[in-house]
Amino acid sequence: MNWSERPVVITGGMGFLGSTLAHRLVEAGAEVTLVDAMLPLYGGNVANIDGIEDRVRVNYADVRDMPAMEQLVAGNPFVFHLASQVSHVDSIQDPFPDIDINVRGTLVLLEAMRHHAPEGRVIYVGTRGQYGPNQELPVAEDAASRPQGMYEITKQAAESCISMYHRVHGIQAVGLRLVNTYGPRHQMKHDKYGVVNWFVRKVLSGEPIPIFGDGSLLRDLLYVDDAVDAILAAAESEVAWGHVYNVGSGVGTSFLDVAKTIVAVAGEGQIEFREFTQERLAMEPGDYVADVTKIRRDLGWEASTPLEEGLGRTVAFYRQHRDRYWQP
Amino acid sequence: MNWSERPVVITGGMGFLGSTLAHRLVEAGAEVTLVDAMLPLYGGNVANIDGIEDRVRVNYADVRDMPAMEQLVAGNPFVFHLASQVSHVDSIQDPFPDIDINVRGTLVLLEAMRHHAPEGRVIYVGTRGQYGPNQELPVAEDAASRPQGMYEITKQAAESCISMYHRVHGIQAVGLRLVNTYGPRHQMKHDKYGVVNWFVRKVLSGEPIPIFGDGSLLRDLLYVDDAVDAILAAAESEVAWGHVYNVGSGVGTSFLDVAKTIVAVAGEGQIEFREFTQERLAMEPGDYVADVTKIRRDLGWEASTPLEEGLGRTVAFYRQHRDRYWQP
Repeated sequence: MNWSERPVVITGGMGFLGSTLAHRLVEAGAEVTLVDAMLPLYGGNVANIDGIEDRVRVNYADVRDMPAMEQLVAGNPFVFHLASQVSHVDSIQDPFPDIDINVRGTLVLLEAMRHHAPEGRVIYVGTRGQYGPNQELPVAEDAASRPQGMYEITKQAAESCISMYHRVHGIQAVGLRLVNTYGPRHQMKHDKYGVVNWFVRKVLSGEPIPIFGDGSLLRDLLYVDDAVDAILAAAESEVAWGHVYNVGSGVGTSFLDVAKTIVAVAGEGQIEFREFTQERLAMEPGDYVADVTKIRRDLGWEASTPLEEGLGRTVAFYRQHRDRYWQP
Repeated sequence: MNWSERPVVITGGMGFLGSTLAHRLVEAGAEVTLVDAMLPLYGGNVANIDGIEDRVRVNYADVRDMPAMEQLVAGNPFVFHLASQVSHVDSIQDPFPDIDINVRGTLVLLEAMRHHAPEGRVIYVGTRGQYGPNQELPVAEDAASRPQGMYEITKQAAESCISMYHRVHGIQAVGLRLVNTYGPRHQMKHDKYGVVNWFVRKVLSGEPIPIFGDGSLLRDLLYVDDAVDAILAAAESEVAWGHVYNVGSGVGTSFLDVAKTIVAVAGEGQIEFREFTQERLAMEPGDYVADVTKIRRDLGWEASTPLEEGLGRTVAFYRQHRDRYWQP
């Protein structure tokens, strides 16, 4: 697809996925507007647009701001809707931001599009957490949805809204369910989400990587550039509209193997085994591996970055830009 | 179970199900508080508590009102959470009340219970619409959830929240998914929901019952007293906590048969066939019959009121109390 001069809006555009997508779309010639509320403790960081700051339009606004969103969707852009409350941990403590940002915010965007950008298109980025725990592995798109926390419940509700606006109001829409994604530009301020990046921070800070239990729990890990490839593949294909797709590597990696690989590629670091706390155990969703048959078949996408390579680039990025991501 | 002097809170307590439940619980000796926001066009009606008005406490408040809910859940009551935006039609036009009332309102209640009534119990009444259309009949509880409108999406999200508070915060909770319920005390002001009751109003107003297409579409119809029996069965059994149950007759009835039965039991009325409008056809979810195996097995409940009898009582009720439910 030719992105040249095509209007694009990325909500959560200053964050991890949003800014990485922006770098790619700017390179492809798109006219990129980044929308971000810059909420404290969320992923927005001006460092994330280093190198493209003069080639994007930054519009600080909250997706819950209807008049702002109405202006921003004018011209029927491609909308990549990444803005979200994404902390499972915080959602347990205070469930209201999840409803407000993830569900109502998505509806504000969709209503703005319904009335002001009916020819626009929206790519929604959700989470594998929408499936809930204890699924048979690998988990395909038609698995029952049993989300287990407010973050997951509201991401699922928002995806249902996206599908509904496609069906009822004709907004072209696709939903993606991403696995644990890691790489450069992820926030490094706290460990509430983004466990792989947090392991990298631990190593670069000279602290041991904490591994709970024996570290054998499996996660499906995806390098951010692969995730961006998948998002673009979904945006570029007519086949995708109206569908939801798993986006993952399709491979399970244990926490222990991730930690060992980080130590290996970094050439430094230690691993520290810890007992599961009761609270952590109650929230642990168990092993997870995505079935990526559908996206491979429909869109021809599959993850291509080996874990060593992705982690190597991540370590290198934060060694160079550490001071822009956390204070020692 | 002995309901005598047991504190009970019913949200949406002035509405159709809530008030019918209240009549039953007052009879059983419970100390019943009815919470209702009395939103215009919703189901709340002071006529619904005729005969028990001196034996219940009526507290006009919105479930989204946290300080009010905190006061109302003190004492760890049984909470029957029925307050809801329930119009599918309205939810298509304006999706925000559904998020606010159904999701945020449920969370306000749950947060109030978490902090002020951790030993309380909550029975949540949802809808078979949470399953979405095109399911294999009859539909069991483990069918994939594909809700198709904001009403259904938000009812599903609220049920997920209920389950989550059970699992994470230990609030005793059970979710029920009701089919089309009809009977005395349902609002008769408009036809946005409650199609069977609307048919009754048509007949009692001397107007023909509108049947779209050939009237062969199937619905699972439940008389309100049976629904109340199911709600009480769920509240009274330890087995139910943490579960969701279908509540229905388990039998499919065509719209044409409902209409014919109303005409027969009323001894008056006509049927008028109409073409489906494009809009109506797009929203029509198709045949539906609930699989009620689980509730029969776990709670020993099953529907017992024949359609003729339920419709007969409904017609008799509105003949007597018509002026309290609609203006000619």
